[in-house]
Amino acid sequence: MTTPDSPLSPPSIGVDVGGTKIATGVLIGDELHARHVQPTPETGWEAVLDAVAAQVQALRAQHPQVTRVGVGVPGPLAEGRTRVKFAPNIYGFTDVPLVQGLEDRLGLRVVLENDAKAAALAEAHLGAARGTASSVYVTVSTGIGSGIVLGGRVWRGHHGIAGELGHVTVMPGGPVSGAGLDGALEAVASGTAIARDASYALNREVSTAEAFALAQSGHPAAGRVVSQALRHIGVALADLQKFLDPEVFVIGGGVAKVGDFFFAGIQAAADEYAGPFAPVTLRRAQLGTDAGVIGAALAARLEGL
Amino acid sequence: MTTPDSPLSPPSIGVDVGGTKIATGVLIGDELHARHVQPTPETGWEAVLDAVAAQVQALRAQHPQVTRVGVGVPGPLAEGRTRVKFAPNIYGFTDVPLVQGLEDRLGLRVVLENDAKAAALAEAHLGAARGTASSVYVTVSTGIGSGIVLGGRVWRGHHGIAGELGHVTVMPGGPVSGAGLDGALEAVASGTAIARDASYALNREVSTAEAFALAQSGHPAAGRVVSQALRHIGVALADLQKFLDPEVFVIGGGVAKVGDFFFAGIQAAADEYAGPFAPVTLRRAQLGTDAGVIGAALAARLEGL
Amino acid sequence: MTTPDSPLSPPSIGVDVGGTKIATGVLIGDELHARHVQPTPETGWEAVLDAVAAQVQALRAQHPQVTRVGVGVPGPLAEGRTRVKFAPNIYGFTDVPLVQGLEDRLGLRVVLENDAKAAALAEAHLGAARGTASSVYVTVSTGIGSGIVLGGRVWRGHHGIAGELGHVTVMPGGPVSGAGLDGALEAVASGTAIARDASYALNREVSTAEAFALAQSGHPAAGRVVSQALRHIGVALADLQKFLDPEVFVIGGGVAKVGDFFFAGIQAAADEYAGPFAPVTLRRAQLGTDAGVIGAALAARLEGL
Amino acid sequence: MTTPDSPLSPPSIGVDVGGTKIATGVLIGDELHARHVQPTPETGWEAVLDAVAAQVQALRAQHPQVTRVGVGVPGPLAEGRTRVKFAPNIYGFTDVPLVQGLEDRLGLRVVLENDAKAAALAEAHLGAARGTASSVYVTVSTGIGSGIVLGGRVWRGHHGIAGELGHVTVMPGGPVSGAGLDGALEAVASGTAIARDASYALNREVSTAEAFALAQSGHPAAGRVVSQALRHIGVALADLQKFLDPEVFVIGGGVAKVGDFFFAGIQAAADEYAGPFAPVTLRRAQLGTDAGVIGAALAARLEGL
Repeated sequence: MTTPDSPLSPPSIGVDVGGTKIATGVLIGDELHARHVQPTPETGWEAVLDAVAAQVQALRAQHPQVTRVGVGVPGPLAEGRTRVKFAPNIYGFTDVPLVQGLEDRLGLRVVLENDAKAAALAEAHLGAARGTASSVYVTVSTGIGSGIVLGGRVWRGHHGIAGELGHVTVMPGGPVSGAGLDGALEAVASGTAIARDASYALNREVSTAEAFALAQSGHPAAGRVVSQALRHIGVALADLQKFLDPEVFVIGGGVAKVGDFFFAGIQAAADEYAGPFAPVTLRRAQLGTDAGVIGAALAARLEGL
Repeated sequence: MTTPDSPLSPPSIGVDVGGTKIATGVLIGDELHARHVQPTPETGWEAVLDAVAAQVQALRAQHPQVTRVGVGVPGPLAEGRTRVKFAPNIYGFTDVPLVQGLEDRLGLRVVLENDAKAAALAEAHLGAARGTASSVYVTVSTGIGSGIVLGGRVWRGHHGIAGELGHVTVMPGGPVSGAGLDGALEAVASGTAIARDASYALNREVSTAEAFALAQSGHPAAGRVVSQALRHIGVALADLQKFLDPEVFVIGGGVAKVGDFFFAGIQAAADEYAGPFAPVTLRRAQLGTDAGVIGAALAARLEGL
Repeated sequence: MTTPDSPLSPPSIGVDVGGTKIATGVLIGDELHARHVQPTPETGWEAVLDAVAAQVQALRAQHPQVTRVGVGVPGPLAEGRTRVKFAPNIYGFTDVPLVQGLEDRLGLRVVLENDAKAAALAEAHLGAARGTASSVYVTVSTGIGSGIVLGGRVWRGHHGIAGELGHVTVMPGGPVSGAGLDGALEAVASGTAIARDASYALNREVSTAEAFALAQSGHPAAGRVVSQALRHIGVALADLQKFLDPEVFVIGGGVAKVGDFFFAGIQAAADEYAGPFAPVTLRRAQLGTDAGVIGAALAARLEGL
Repeated sequence: MTTPDSPLSPPSIGVDVGGTKIATGVLIGDELHARHVQPTPETGWEAVLDAVAAQVQALRAQHPQVTRVGVGVPGPLAEGRTRVKFAPNIYGFTDVPLVQGLEDRLGLRVVLENDAKAAALAEAHLGAARGTASSVYVTVSTGIGSGIVLGGRVWRGHHGIAGELGHVTVMPGGPVSGAGLDGALEAVASGTAIARDASYALNREVSTAEAFALAQSGHPAAGRVVSQALRHIGVALADLQKFLDPEVFVIGGGVAKVGDFFFAGIQAAADEYAGPFAPVTLRRAQLGTDAGVIGAALAARLEGL
């Protein structure tokens, strides 16, 4: 693995473009410097690129030696990771030629990365999976996604879809996902699925957080909703352990903030279905909201190495 | 079976108390006379009983020979079918001593029946299952319920819960019902479940009706939601055929109004899982909104026979 | 319910024709008298009928007042219960005009019954379900079958298939039954299924009895095989409780002889899936190998009453 | 990927040790030379090593320039791939210090590989997945196993268990595997599972081959057994496509010899559950029984490169 403080670790700028804010920073060795957050413009993608470019130039005024720029975006990429197909949470972000647009504005090489893969990279190099040769970062929030890091690099797969953990089939005949498949993991175990199922079971609007709170306080129906969801996640991770055998799983995302109760539920099912093969090692994500910026910066750092 | 036009068919008054309206009528032989509908009072159960009593007295002014009164209510009953435990859709209807309250007001013998069982009785004697020795009436609406009629009488079971078809387990690990059980039929295949799952799959509010419309027009995700639901219903009915072997299933309820597409989906799955044992015969409910009044009147007619 | 010692309880002869032996007796009131067992002839059905007739005549020599004869056979019946379609365990027993054949030989009215239904009747009137208004007798042996008794009488259903509990679907996509259906209860939970799955899991021939012995002694894989099977049975019984709501389930058959461990496993799953509706009451069959003779005699006694 | 005819492709000797025979050969560039097959000694592992060493020396007499030796064995490895834990099909092969034992006998460096991983390597470099950057070799025979090849190298995972595809969970509550897990892929879809389930469904001993023959000729129960098994495999491969996104799956093993019918069944389910993500590309293994020798030779060739 390329370690971040080796001579092969040039400093780089990371940009995490989200639906409400743009976070930026400079990654020097293992440290993120000059963290900065600004609102995401809501007047179209060109305005977003303008804002990103202005902030990158401001950072370069302080760190002129930094020539690498990485950008993370919450959506699927296309054309050799030069375009964003769409980012549903960012206003006007459909079919955006992001790399070309920023390189024109900056005169620098720009590297684009999906935000979950960026977070996976950040946790693998500088977070909960630091020092491992293989890790899978799993984010459980409104959906379920993952990023696979092997030998320090993101594993993308042949069609670039590797990591679509939310869409593996865990209960044939079960709820149908946005992708039209029945029984997909995120359709039965994401935060949205938990809120949906708890709302149905309790016959009133129940948020994911409330579902967990009720489950922890012993509410039978909410408890069953939550335990089924965690069980499905745990069985899925045990399956990945047996198939890919990563060193660790790093679990992040909004739902993971529930903490011990959440992790214990997943671990129990994972242990049960790991069987005699190998233990499933779960770790909590460490980098929090910085993961996106750090991961984007790492993507830029690793490009071409 | 006691046929409705036998000498054993005294005329009776039927009352169907719903959340928004109270329907009444007089059943003479096979014919419902003097249909009447009024709004359900929303000031508590005593007002509801007053309104029912007033209307029954008005009917008796026209039909003084009628001394039997049956009342159907959408909720579970208690104490030998003399009390209503609760009727969630009727304001203030919790622990209502309905039989005593009406008998005091009317000076007549009153028979209380659950509304789904009343509808089952109506369809068995005068509707889609007329002439059969056994039938199961299945209602697919916001929930899924059923009423079993054997030899012309409602089968109640030892604890009075017979017919809780919505709560049989069809997909262990699946969505949790209001009763706290995972994978119950109504949690995967009721109108509410279809709307819930279609809304999730399409990531916007989708009604049951729209889910069916989309499925019929070829929308893949909506189609999968609906076909899974119909399949679960069909498999459940095939199981009941093999276990109880009724002559027919009568299918009613709001969702059944979808028509051919709905019935074809259920029939296909039922045929597949009936196997070599016996065919599953589905019929559409015939009595529509009159089923409740007719069934309540039949409940009164059959009492003591 | 017709109680056995009422004036409506005429004495009758019961015959239980099995694959290896024919058992007979005279039921007077609640008591079985003159039990007799002889080998089943293996030279064709006419020889079997000759042997049955000879033994019935011997019983009538002692009990000349008895004119009713009931015969139980392990197979499906046809033509108004006058013929046996086939009895796979009895040599040459295919399409046997049993009632005609015996009535010709005896000059008495003969009543034919399926052996599981006969046992259900026996347990309902004189065994574990005595005094109940409704019961389901479940036999777990090489297959899984059941007999439903409502109001003291066998419930046969419209096509005569009622009670095919072994063929209800409990795990879609699971093992295929002899009837060609995937995930049928007996394909996942019968004695044969348990032996089959334990043999697979342990990679050697394991009998049903050994599978239970291993499970009880803590063998993980055998334990999982057995607990899954018992769980499937328990969930199925909970479903029947919610749908038919019988007063009790009587469990018999060779596998039930395992005893406490077997019943506890079923009860736990039944309790879990009964939810808030009504408890599932399990009782052990009491009549053992006499159930068939007693039930056949009861079938004759009840005929025409 | 290291291509086999590059200057980085030194010739090597491959040895495939099976339960009944030992196959050997010399891999020069893309070509396997001097194929040789002899019976596997049945007098203990030392005799097996003697036989292997003698044959390797015979090959080296003809090809003295070859100094690399790779050995494939059907069982799990230990201690940095220097020992065989056990090989259930080879007499006496438990805890065998294979590398040390052969290096002592030969005075050459010996590389040990699991036979499924060797076959995966062979198909990836010189067989059905030649020219791909990533492939998963799946063998469907008495069990189900797989080997993952990424960038021309076997992916082993952190604990060395990567590729245990037969043990991923596809039907919770289903048949229990030898590893004690319910619903594992090989417990529901391997050749052994198909024969077991077909034998149960048909109530007689049915081989895997006969099950397929019956299924192809339209036998309903056998057809359902086989189609369920193929469906489970197809869904599992679609899940791996979404998670790991390999360029191709290469399918081999005894069951795959069924041909078109087998592949069509898997492809249909894989297509259904691939959804909109990426197609699942299935290819038939090309190297047949040579895969083991070629893969062992490749393992030796690649070692240290």
